[in-house]
Amino acid sequence: MVLDIKPNSIFNLQSIHQSVSVRFNYEILFTNNLFNLKNSTLAQVITTDGEKKPKKVVAVIDAGLLQYWPELPKQLAAYTKFYAEILTLAVKPMIVPGGEAAKNDRTLLEQIHKLIEAAGLCRHSYLLAVGGGAVLDLVGYAAATAHRGIRLIRIPTTVLAQNDSGIGVKNGINAFGKKNFLGTFAPPYAVINDSAFLTTLSDRDWLSGIAEAVKVALIKDARFFDFIHSHTAALVSRDMDAMQQLIYRCAQLHLEHIANSGDPFEMGSSRPLDFGHWAAHRLEHLTNYSLRHGEAVAIGIALDSTYSYLLGLLDWSNCQRILNTLSALGFTLYVPELAERSSPLEDSRCLFRGLTEFREHLGGELTLTLLQNIGQGIEVHEVELSLYKKAISLLQDVENRQTLLTAS
Amino acid sequence: MVLDIKPNSIFNLQSIHQSVSVRFNYEILFTNNLFNLKNSTLAQVITTDGEKKPKKVVAVIDAGLLQYWPELPKQLAAYTKFYAEILTLAVKPMIVPGGEAAKNDRTLLEQIHKLIEAAGLCRHSYLLAVGGGAVLDLVGYAAATAHRGIRLIRIPTTVLAQNDSGIGVKNGINAFGKKNFLGTFAPPYAVINDSAFLTTLSDRDWLSGIAEAVKVALIKDARFFDFIHSHTAALVSRDMDAMQQLIYRCAQLHLEHIANSGDPFEMGSSRPLDFGHWAAHRLEHLTNYSLRHGEAVAIGIALDSTYSYLLGLLDWSNCQRILNTLSALGFTLYVPELAERSSPLEDSRCLFRGLTEFREHLGGELTLTLLQNIGQGIEVHEVELSLYKKAISLLQDVENRQTLLTAS
Ligand SMILES: NC(=O)c1ccc[n+]([C@@H]2O[C@H](COP(=O)([O-])OP(=O)(O)OC[C@H]3O[C@@H](n4cnc5c(N)ncnc54)[C@H](O)[C@@H]3O)[C@@H](O)[C@H]2O)c1
Ligand SMILES: NC(=O)c1ccc[n+]([C@@H]2O[C@H](COP(=O)([O-])OP(=O)(O)OC[C@H]3O[C@@H](n4cnc5c(N)ncnc54)[C@H](O)[C@@H]3O)[C@@H](O)[C@H]2O)c1
Ligand SMILES: [Zn+2]
Ligand SMILES: [Zn+2]
Repeated sequence: MVLDIKPNSIFNLQSIHQSVSVRFNYEILFTNNLFNLKNSTLAQVITTDGEKKPKKVVAVIDAGLLQYWPELPKQLAAYTKFYAEILTLAVKPMIVPGGEAAKNDRTLLEQIHKLIEAAGLCRHSYLLAVGGGAVLDLVGYAAATAHRGIRLIRIPTTVLAQNDSGIGVKNGINAFGKKNFLGTFAPPYAVINDSAFLTTLSDRDWLSGIAEAVKVALIKDARFFDFIHSHTAALVSRDMDAMQQLIYRCAQLHLEHIANSGDPFEMGSSRPLDFGHWAAHRLEHLTNYSLRHGEAVAIGIALDSTYSYLLGLLDWSNCQRILNTLSALGFTLYVPELAERSSPLEDSRCLFRGLTEFREHLGGELTLTLLQNIGQGIEVHEVELSLYKKAISLLQDVENRQTLLTAS
Repeated sequence: MVLDIKPNSIFNLQSIHQSVSVRFNYEILFTNNLFNLKNSTLAQVITTDGEKKPKKVVAVIDAGLLQYWPELPKQLAAYTKFYAEILTLAVKPMIVPGGEAAKNDRTLLEQIHKLIEAAGLCRHSYLLAVGGGAVLDLVGYAAATAHRGIRLIRIPTTVLAQNDSGIGVKNGINAFGKKNFLGTFAPPYAVINDSAFLTTLSDRDWLSGIAEAVKVALIKDARFFDFIHSHTAALVSRDMDAMQQLIYRCAQLHLEHIANSGDPFEMGSSRPLDFGHWAAHRLEHLTNYSLRHGEAVAIGIALDSTYSYLLGLLDWSNCQRILNTLSALGFTLYVPELAERSSPLEDSRCLFRGLTEFREHLGGELTLTLLQNIGQGIEVHEVELSLYKKAISLLQDVENRQTLLTAS
């Protein structure tokens, strides 16, 4: 007998086309006082896996968070004792440095892997990541690569992590001096946003995450931009109700984009959610990370909005509204690092190298998102550096009040 | 204005359900003499990405393969020169040890990451992995984690890699003494199976990969099992035409399963393609990897087929046919490590610890595939160790010709 396979040339048998489709489902839950014994959110998340209980859990906690919440490990221990039929703490929580330090030290990744191994976690066990976006990125990478993926429950504790970085499908650490050089696409098992944690954030970290909300509002939802615009005072004075609404809507818009863009794992060259980010990433680097991510994003938004105006895409009045809103929120729209614009591209401090790096990280053709209206992004594939330089001058003037923006 | 978000309890705002679907497409191409200048297969694969050319390529090659194909780097250089408008070799190929050594040395992973960085590869560049399953697993892991995934073209050079390990969606390396402890699910960009490479395989490696074909035939395709059964002589005498047909059909069955199982990234507890593998993995470990993976799988198949017979699931005549076919192919059906069966489970050399490890790697409930007929697998969730011990005795008798199998 012979199987029905025929060679179709001297070199080739027929080829086989493979098409694999994978669906990931997860819940983003909003709560407060997660580890209060009366709060069953976490226990419920684990119950819904429908498997034999109790399930093994290991936690990794942000040291910067712990400073303000020193009782956290004790609370977690009490919580797992109370819900002992559902989950069991396999080992003591591991504490990792908060902020970018979490992503710069490669031995941390290995330590988390070791912890997973020592605790005997399997693919159906749970790793709990509690902290800011940096810690979540580190722990997410470790979870995604142990046993080819164990279940990750993210508990984001900053505004930015709750409305953007902690709810998506990416993780990563820095390597070879490059931001997020190592990482994977790996959706979490669940995300639990606890508003209580936000009360201890520094003003800078409280503010910083708002930039991502402005960003997504500008490219997708004019009504949401109006909400932010009309709540600047409340947001600045740390009104929790306004912040909760902002986080919720921002998260929703990010999640919708990831689910419906058709390219959740970024295999193409387009990334609209990175509006304002080419300059932001570059400025973070040029300022040696003295700018928070959100602070840099605010400047990036201001720059790309102004450039959109100069290009004739966006009305001056809309551009003014954007710059005004960012200013009213407390963001600085200009830093000296922008002014190193005049250096040639070869200069290691030239802002515009950010464009090349942005293209290289995604690969393929340069694709930037600009604005044609508030709530409406548009993609372009070319840039006019001379107009960008004008945009930078304009921002400098605005910041120095040499260009007066009409109230709106 | 207020957004329409209402808290649904004192603790919870409404939750957001996220559902992300990702589709991966790739081609498995069959060819011979891949780097012959007249063979445009590889160039075509890169052309079809539809992007601006030439594209950057970096190659990582199996040292064990290179021993038999010392001209490979030169040929690759000539090939990229000939197709210079399509692809360009960014740096010299990197050579890594072949076999399990590739997966045991963690610094290799870092070296490949470094190479990717130094060559300035982006997500739309290509990493070429040329070698056996072990090298492909290592390089695949590196590719999946640099920039959160650069394009991987696998060029498998063993039977096992061409019909099973090199065509699927997994990669990985060993850590903490555990096989595949680190890794991800990451489909390749393309796979190119070159039959010319198979001519230099040792008889053991030629044979070894046939076990995976027997495995997938037994659980899915009786007609394919008949093909193998009627071609044992040709396969043993290294008939390339028979081998090509075997590889093609085996690959097809694996690919169909991955695409249609509903769980390509193994988030559940079932893994039918691992028929015979719980004992195989354990025997590889107990023999200190002196058994090839396929050799261990052949024993695992013999064991689980015999157990299926003793359980009353499979006819004795079918069981005989299976054992006869494996023997005729040259596989040993019994090794002394099976006989350490009488040790208690606590004993570190007890075979049956393999059942626990098998369950732990996937997580959740124990799920084993057995046979109810040739071509028809069935899942069970419990085992009777006493029957397994009987199965082992029976295999020992068969191997010693104390139980005579009727010709079939
Ligand atoms: N994965 C993604 O999709 C994605 C998207 C955007 C950004 N990011 C990453 O997120 C990181 C930034 O995250 P971030 O803005 O959350 O900052 P962060 O993680 O750097 O944390 C900022 C500081 O706040 C501390 N902290 C955390 N929670 C606190 C709390 N409740 N009270 C007091 N202090 C607290 C931390 O210890 C740290 O010192 C960057 O590394 C960025 O690359 C990832
Ligand atoms: N990713 C998966 O889905 C998956 C599935 C099954 C097995 N695997 C892995 O595959 C590995 C086994 O792969 P394998 O069976 O291909 O063996 P291998 O990669 O261990 O290679 C066996 C030997 O053959 C040499 N070699 C390779 N090609 C040759 C050629 N053409 N001529 C002469 N020598 C050659 C290698 O250098 C090595 O010494 C294991 O690590 C196993 O875990 C992975
Ligand atoms: Zn951002
Ligand atoms: Zn196998």
